[in-house]
Amino acid sequence: MPAVQPGDDLAAHLGAALDRAGLVATRDDVLVVAQKVVSKAEGRVVDLRTVTPSAEAARLAAIVEKDPRLVEVILSETASVLRAVPGVLVVETRLGFVCANAGVDHSNVGPDESWVVLLPEDPDATARALREAIGRATGAAPAVIVNDSHGRAWREGAVGVAIGAAGIGAVEDLRGRPDLFGRALRVTTVGVIDELAAAASLVMGQADEGVPAVLVRGAAFPRAGDGARDVLRAPAQDLFR
Amino acid sequence: MPAVQPGDDLAAHLGAALDRAGLVATRDDVLVVAQKVVSKAEGRVVDLRTVTPSAEAARLAAIVEKDPRLVEVILSETASVLRAVPGVLVVETRLGFVCANAGVDHSNVGPDESWVVLLPEDPDATARALREAIGRATGAAPAVIVNDSHGRAWREGAVGVAIGAAGIGAVEDLRGRPDLFGRALRVTTVGVIDELAAAASLVMGQADEGVPAVLVRGAAFPRAGDGARDVLRAPAQDLFR
Repeated sequence: MPAVQPGDDLAAHLGAALDRAGLVATRDDVLVVAQKVVSKAEGRVVDLRTVTPSAEAARLAAIVEKDPRLVEVILSETASVLRAVPGVLVVETRLGFVCANAGVDHSNVGPDESWVVLLPEDPDATARALREAIGRATGAAPAVIVNDSHGRAWREGAVGVAIGAAGIGAVEDLRGRPDLFGRALRVTTVGVIDELAAAASLVMGQADEGVPAVLVRGAAFPRAGDGARDVLRAPAQDLFR
Repeated sequence: MPAVQPGDDLAAHLGAALDRAGLVATRDDVLVVAQKVVSKAEGRVVDLRTVTPSAEAARLAAIVEKDPRLVEVILSETASVLRAVPGVLVVETRLGFVCANAGVDHSNVGPDESWVVLLPEDPDATARALREAIGRATGAAPAVIVNDSHGRAWREGAVGVAIGAAGIGAVEDLRGRPDLFGRALRVTTVGVIDELAAAASLVMGQADEGVPAVLVRGAAFPRAGDGARDVLRAPAQDLFR
């Protein structure tokens, strides 16, 4: 795919890329699209030179040792700050994702250090729109996942996770499905969109070197759901905030 | 593969399964093996009828509303209890993994409800042994990952993670690798063994219906490392315990 620019028709880019690859997506496929290209197409970029940090951003920036203007942008995306220590700022975003820096990223926006890229405003809506546009163009709408790489509690290394989804259930519920011997399973729900996001992330790599989307074939997945928001644990049920 | 029994030669089972599939593993492949079959082959099963719960197990069992004998087995695998509320017992295992019930599982051990299966005693050692045995038999040793499904903070649904590894680095370090525009990346380390474990988990499913191992081809992965233990964040560095 060509480098995506703000205002680009991402569905058209993806359709053309599928064509060039000789692929016709079906409703049994999952098209995983990198957050970065979604954010760029949707113009979710900010020039830090236009940002004036609030007193709160300046206070937090001193703790986490980051640019106060960057912290101001992060706070504009944040519902609540979960952890703030030198070098680390973990928040719950307005969408409910728990991640470092509200997903705001310095890299790959352009040649100028002052530009940052934000998460899409509503990645579930983006996934739905991409799915519908590809379905209109080709007659068959694949499931669509928007993925990003997030750090985790307890384990080093970021892994691919879904931040948007359409045409696929976020979590597969195995409760009541008997195992080989007819008893309940220990693992009762599976974060299937996140496993797909992680698998696609392996293919994409992390350095945006030209794999902005991955078509996954042959995976079994549930169909019903309201998007990646379904994977978010309600804060009141979360034991690790 | 046939159903694995305690004492079975798992490397021989895996080699025969690869043969039947017409696959010759290479050192660029990753063989992902389900924890359940490793644990069974290594005889890591306990009959709860032989277990006498301690006073501490009985006390904790009343809180989490589980069988005191099961809690006794869980505590025998536990370094520290992180959370204990009705229905949920999250611990750090003696190996350092943070997971529900120390990975002790009721399902699929045999037709009798009283048997439970524990995590392998040293899954990194298991991965090394499987890798060496397959290498001896075939002349080419693939990387080996032992995977399991663990729940997560913040997100619903268990996902595949690595609990043992050999011939592969646990975490890919991208720090200092420039992005398209030459700047530092937001994502600086990637939990590559966990992304591979999640991808394999998609293929395995959760109900042990006959996919105990997956051969992953075409993935780029780092070679150097000391096993899945490298993915564990040091408790002192972990902000979410």
